[in-house]
Amino acid sequence: MPKTDVSGLTQLGAKVDAPASPEEAVLEKVPASHAGTDYVVRFTAPEFTSICPMTGQPDFAHIVIDYIPGDWLVESKSLKLYLHSFRNHGAFHEDCSIDIGKRLVDLLDPKWLRIGAYWYPRGGIPIDVFWQTGEPPEGVWIPDQGVAPYRGRG
Amino acid sequence: MPKTDVSGLTQLGAKVDAPASPEEAVLEKVPASHAGTDYVVRFTAPEFTSICPMTGQPDFAHIVIDYIPGDWLVESKSLKLYLHSFRNHGAFHEDCSIDIGKRLVDLLDPKWLRIGAYWYPRGGIPIDVFWQTGEPPEGVWIPDQGVAPYRGRG
Amino acid sequence: MPKTDVSGLTQLGAKVDAPASPEEAVLEKVPASHAGTDYVVRFTAPEFTSICPMTGQPDFAHIVIDYIPGDWLVESKSLKLYLHSFRNHGAFHEDCSIDIGKRLVDLLDPKWLRIGAYWYPRGGIPIDVFWQTGEPPEGVWIPDQGVAPYRGRG
Amino acid sequence: MPKTDVSGLTQLGAKVDAPASPEEAVLEKVPASHAGTDYVVRFTAPEFTSICPMTGQPDFAHIVIDYIPGDWLVESKSLKLYLHSFRNHGAFHEDCSIDIGKRLVDLLDPKWLRIGAYWYPRGGIPIDVFWQTGEPPEGVWIPDQGVAPYRGRG
Amino acid sequence: MPKTDVSGLTQLGAKVDAPASPEEAVLEKVPASHAGTDYVVRFTAPEFTSICPMTGQPDFAHIVIDYIPGDWLVESKSLKLYLHSFRNHGAFHEDCSIDIGKRLVDLLDPKWLRIGAYWYPRGGIPIDVFWQTGEPPEGVWIPDQGVAPYRGRG
Amino acid sequence: MPKTDVSGLTQLGAKVDAPASPEEAVLEKVPASHAGTDYVVRFTAPEFTSICPMTGQPDFAHIVIDYIPGDWLVESKSLKLYLHSFRNHGAFHEDCSIDIGKRLVDLLDPKWLRIGAYWYPRGGIPIDVFWQTGEPPEGVWIPDQGVAPYRGRG
Amino acid sequence: MPKTDVSGLTQLGAKVDAPASPEEAVLEKVPASHAGTDYVVRFTAPEFTSICPMTGQPDFAHIVIDYIPGDWLVESKSLKLYLHSFRNHGAFHEDCSIDIGKRLVDLLDPKWLRIGAYWYPRGGIPIDVFWQTGEPPEGVWIPDQGVAPYRGRG
Amino acid sequence: MPKTDVSGLTQLGAKVDAPASPEEAVLEKVPASHAGTDYVVRFTAPEFTSICPMTGQPDFAHIVIDYIPGDWLVESKSLKLYLHSFRNHGAFHEDCSIDIGKRLVDLLDPKWLRIGAYWYPRGGIPIDVFWQTGEPPEGVWIPDQGVAPYRGRG
Amino acid sequence: MPKTDVSGLTQLGAKVDAPASPEEAVLEKVPASHAGTDYVVRFTAPEFTSICPMTGQPDFAHIVIDYIPGDWLVESKSLKLYLHSFRNHGAFHEDCSIDIGKRLVDLLDPKWLRIGAYWYPRGGIPIDVFWQTGEPPEGVWIPDQGVAPYRGRG
Amino acid sequence: MPKTDVSGLTQLGAKVDAPASPEEAVLEKVPASHAGTDYVVRFTAPEFTSICPMTGQPDFAHIVIDYIPGDWLVESKSLKLYLHSFRNHGAFHEDCSIDIGKRLVDLLDPKWLRIGAYWYPRGGIPIDVFWQTGEPPEGVWIPDQGVAPYRGRG
Ligand SMILES: [Ca+2]
Ligand SMILES: [Ca+2]
Ligand SMILES: [Ca+2]
Ligand SMILES: [Ca+2]
Ligand SMILES: [Ca+2]
Ligand SMILES: [Ca+2]
Ligand SMILES: [Ca+2]
Ligand SMILES: [Ca+2]
Ligand SMILES: [Ca+2]
Ligand SMILES: [Ca+2]
Ligand SMILES: [Ca+2]
Ligand SMILES: [Ca+2]
Ligand SMILES: [Ca+2]
Ligand SMILES: [Ca+2]
Ligand SMILES: [Ca+2]
Ligand SMILES: [Ca+2]
Repeated sequence: MPKTDVSGLTQLGAKVDAPASPEEAVLEKVPASHAGTDYVVRFTAPEFTSICPMTGQPDFAHIVIDYIPGDWLVESKSLKLYLHSFRNHGAFHEDCSIDIGKRLVDLLDPKWLRIGAYWYPRGGIPIDVFWQTGEPPEGVWIPDQGVAPYRGRG
Repeated sequence: MPKTDVSGLTQLGAKVDAPASPEEAVLEKVPASHAGTDYVVRFTAPEFTSICPMTGQPDFAHIVIDYIPGDWLVESKSLKLYLHSFRNHGAFHEDCSIDIGKRLVDLLDPKWLRIGAYWYPRGGIPIDVFWQTGEPPEGVWIPDQGVAPYRGRG
Repeated sequence: MPKTDVSGLTQLGAKVDAPASPEEAVLEKVPASHAGTDYVVRFTAPEFTSICPMTGQPDFAHIVIDYIPGDWLVESKSLKLYLHSFRNHGAFHEDCSIDIGKRLVDLLDPKWLRIGAYWYPRGGIPIDVFWQTGEPPEGVWIPDQGVAPYRGRG
Repeated sequence: MPKTDVSGLTQLGAKVDAPASPEEAVLEKVPASHAGTDYVVRFTAPEFTSICPMTGQPDFAHIVIDYIPGDWLVESKSLKLYLHSFRNHGAFHEDCSIDIGKRLVDLLDPKWLRIGAYWYPRGGIPIDVFWQTGEPPEGVWIPDQGVAPYRGRG
Repeated sequence: MPKTDVSGLTQLGAKVDAPASPEEAVLEKVPASHAGTDYVVRFTAPEFTSICPMTGQPDFAHIVIDYIPGDWLVESKSLKLYLHSFRNHGAFHEDCSIDIGKRLVDLLDPKWLRIGAYWYPRGGIPIDVFWQTGEPPEGVWIPDQGVAPYRGRG
Repeated sequence: MPKTDVSGLTQLGAKVDAPASPEEAVLEKVPASHAGTDYVVRFTAPEFTSICPMTGQPDFAHIVIDYIPGDWLVESKSLKLYLHSFRNHGAFHEDCSIDIGKRLVDLLDPKWLRIGAYWYPRGGIPIDVFWQTGEPPEGVWIPDQGVAPYRGRG
Repeated sequence: MPKTDVSGLTQLGAKVDAPASPEEAVLEKVPASHAGTDYVVRFTAPEFTSICPMTGQPDFAHIVIDYIPGDWLVESKSLKLYLHSFRNHGAFHEDCSIDIGKRLVDLLDPKWLRIGAYWYPRGGIPIDVFWQTGEPPEGVWIPDQGVAPYRGRG
Repeated sequence: MPKTDVSGLTQLGAKVDAPASPEEAVLEKVPASHAGTDYVVRFTAPEFTSICPMTGQPDFAHIVIDYIPGDWLVESKSLKLYLHSFRNHGAFHEDCSIDIGKRLVDLLDPKWLRIGAYWYPRGGIPIDVFWQTGEPPEGVWIPDQGVAPYRGRG
Repeated sequence: MPKTDVSGLTQLGAKVDAPASPEEAVLEKVPASHAGTDYVVRFTAPEFTSICPMTGQPDFAHIVIDYIPGDWLVESKSLKLYLHSFRNHGAFHEDCSIDIGKRLVDLLDPKWLRIGAYWYPRGGIPIDVFWQTGEPPEGVWIPDQGVAPYRGRG
Repeated sequence: MPKTDVSGLTQLGAKVDAPASPEEAVLEKVPASHAGTDYVVRFTAPEFTSICPMTGQPDFAHIVIDYIPGDWLVESKSLKLYLHSFRNHGAFHEDCSIDIGKRLVDLLDPKWLRIGAYWYPRGGIPIDVFWQTGEPPEGVWIPDQGVAPYRGRG
């Protein structure tokens, strides 16, 4: 039996239909079992896609999320479904990236969180967006995300 | 409908002739929708080219721009056209790199901005130029640009 | 004859049966011979595997441990056997990673310790966990762990 | 005025709605202007996504297509729209990859064509699919696709 | 509804207990829908582990399998479970690698198959095993597996 | 005094204005001094740029040319100026790449020549073009061009 | 019980003193259990060291051995000890590399064998030695050794 | 006409004989046009060579110089000629590296300067030298030089 | 004549027998010619080998040493011979690494020194050791050692 | 005593003045001790430099030489001195590269030889030269030289 309390979850281990929009997606959380210990959890989502609000064309991004849990951990299956729910959602790169970060902050009330969104190039010039909730707490180890910079060809 | 107010734009979604010089290029901006949130936007432009003012030969650079928006975001299509406008413009590497950074500062009045310009080698020795408007504000996450150093051959 | 006192060891140089669980594994230690000198010891364990507590499927991780010895060094063969003992153990990624770190802290009472656990992707999204016991002591050299970020394909 | 005859195109330079399925997508072609010359054209599509027919979850792939034109070139904008049309299409990895290759063969009747589809991992194990129409003609230069193998973590 | 006939499967989409040994594992197959087309399917399994028959210690390998289907495709979930079933199985590196290849040949009767097994070092010296059923058929495209060679440190 | 006869050159060592178009560019050649020896000369031009004939926007490519000299070598400064002359020239990727190869074949009548043109992505999908004049002569060593494949982000 | 017959071994699983020279080292073999199957076994030895016969200074090499077994496999622990036995042995790079290959051929009578020895630079110029017993048999898969070329600095 | 005042230069745009020694080389400077703006200029010189003062053998280095201009920029052609002038100059690695840095400091009186000299290995062990004039001024952006560490072979 | 005073050296330029142990090795020093200038000297030794004190088997390490000279530089040939003298010396990884660092500190009385020792894996788990004499002096530039982390296979 | 007969050498183990030109350099050879065995010897010279015959400026190249010995091996110290002798020699890239290859062929009468010369860029465009004496003999293993292609910046 796992140490983590999973009793409040509705999606993990069940067959869940893909949510049709970020609004419909249900992000779930579980109690963090190491209360009093400050550590970082990193999710890497190389499969993010949304829709350009001006042209209707698909956009793609590689997204990395780091956070220091307070009382809660995000449940990873619900996170996956939430990220998939942007598939038919239209938003500018800057908005979309910040919205994901803020939704997680609202859910988890973490001690600290940051999101890096590395968008595929449009017009030859990719956009990256980097946001964190503020200076991280002292004494916590937070490695660089280390995503390779875009280099064109050659 | 996008969250970002695009009503003031004249170029996005329209067919626009390439501007003939940096002076003629029209850089446009949109209101930033996450006022009060300090995040970094990165543009990577691996397709920059200008003219050497002494010899008339083309120069090339890989350019990366990071900024923390204040009230404004630069509109990305207008940025692309502005960068293309250096195609027939003559300037020294140091001047050209700093001029781009300052033009964006004038337009956006950002909380902070930096530009890294990685020029292709001339005479076997490439020049890089690195400028920022000053120490970035506390608590904002700004990853390294991570461009690979020049290594010649082998 | 080695400088390090190995007289208290029961496993090194002997044939030892693999422990069946983390609880049964015997972590051993030897006196640190450079008392008064603060240095970092790093173990890299690319062969870690445990069991998902919800599905019974195997999980895999690449784990890196850094610590500054106090009076004790962990004996490396016993560490290897301890890590192997998770082979049939079920735990969430976050719990498992923190548990290993804390077990070593209990054993060694080090001046400082951190653990990075880089889990293989499930549902397309890998989880990393980063923990340290607090701000490292001043003047000790602790390089980045430098594990490459997950990138999907292409 | 371009050397290539573009008079038969209906999508290039126009605003086109995204096709809802591969069947609805209109792949277009232009006459190849270097008749009698055997060369290879390579398209790299790192932004491919479809739907798993069993679970409804999104799948992702990095796709590379090489072909030797006969009388026709595929028009690249229509190819982009065709690939985007799989966004809500359900198919197994093997079927989907071969279907794309065969659709292009039907359109272009090329002298030779191959497709490499590098799918993101599911269950820890990615699938790649490699197909070509047969031994390439003698004396044509066809470089390796050179996509990095999947390596998990570490 | 998928093009591929999945009616004969017993494990896909169901909860299946992990098989306790390779002998107990049930490898399943589906009819290949592109009969008459010779293409290559590649599985990459970076999470393989077995037991050393002499010492009882765990061994690890990165395994890549390429095959050209005849009438059948291996069902990927059953393949995953089969590979997991070596978790408590003792075998020499050479035997284990060849056994996996032969089991798949028996199941699928493919037109051609190869397996590359890249074992983690023991005693400082890793072993790789490379086997194929014979010269591949003419005109089929089979890229290199491209696994990076072992390099020790530095 | 150099072994190579440079007496027929008009541009090398002189100040030459940049030619305004490929037609105006003067490609020059010098006698090859190792007649009877078949070797390969490779030029790598990472600074190629032309104009899209449909939109007037700049295009960029990384170009690599390999050839086996017959009686002539191309003079490298004139080659550089010729490549620069595409700066304001409009052409499709496929045409432009093949045209450069054929111009060199007309000039040099080489025993063999190939050109690889690696274009920067447009619409997320880069095009590469690979052409050679035919099967290279027996016994000549021609390494792969080895340009890294395009990978998007992450 | 392992499938491979290990009854003739004297060193595996026993404590063995390091042999003082290649002549004293005992290379052992076991019967190959997949008779009639042609596959390749690769050993990678990044820890090879010998002595320069002219100066007495240590030399280092990264060595990779590939072979197709006939009736015998080399036992890996004895191979490790054999390679260690060159530690105080003086030989030129070319001789040393070929001697190792020939010793294995004498022991195993393999269907085919090759050795690549990648020596650390002396005087700025490293030597590599590549030998195989002849053209490999048809239809056997033998990947490149893929060792990175020496590049000096930068 | 360039923004930068080049009226005081004697070498740029002229044919200049290679100086025979560092003492004879004439380093030139131009006024910096962005007075009041602190930015970094980086020169990368992968083609540096000098002579070992003990043996007369050539030495090689990859050199990277970063500085923050005060009133002056170094003119890049004169820098190239100055670096070339070490070709027949004998000096220890440490001296040579520091001498270059100090010469530039004397010329430019920069706000800050550093030099990294990455020497090719002699006796298997390369030397690197790193010097800066002191702590850089606050708020200036100075990326790592990022030169790959030496790794021998494998 | 070199700027550096080499008059006190006994080994440089002479034929010297390899010392049989670290105790017998003679480490030599020369006066540092840039007194008052704080810079870093880095030695990279990818060819280090010693003996395991428990088993007599050879161990290998990649070692990097950084120091800020006070009045003395270590003479590089004597350093090479000193490192070679560990060839038949038995010591634990942690002891051996720290001993080298301390020996250099005793010899040179440097302003600061650090050593990174990256040991080849034993039992699948490599050990790294990192030590420095304390916080480096302000305003001195000390790049990361940047040695790639161990990654097993794949 | 080495297996290789070194009795005819005049430079190895002696202090030799650097030859002033390729003509003055004395290339020496030793009898190959493995007569009847066809293997490849590779020399990698990342430190090659010569003089441009038109401008007097230094040129640099990374050079790799592969050969199959007949009766002779080139002595490596004499090869190093020969390559150093180009330091003040003026030649075009193509001539210089082929001359080195032919000089070795004259000396050694090898069964086969090739040379790859990878020159540093001039005018933004590097030249590579690849030559071999003809098709290599059957059954000899000759790996790719694998030098990374030039990529400019980014
Ligand atoms: Ca950091
Ligand atoms: Ca490029
Ligand atoms: Ca930083
Ligand atoms: Ca750090
Ligand atoms: Ca990708
Ligand atoms: Ca190939
Ligand atoms: Ca190494
Ligand atoms: Ca090849
Ligand atoms: Ca990606
Ligand atoms: Ca191959
Ligand atoms: Ca280099
Ligand atoms: Ca830094
Ligand atoms: Ca190595
Ligand atoms: Ca640092
Ligand atoms: Ca791995
Ligand atoms: Ca670039």
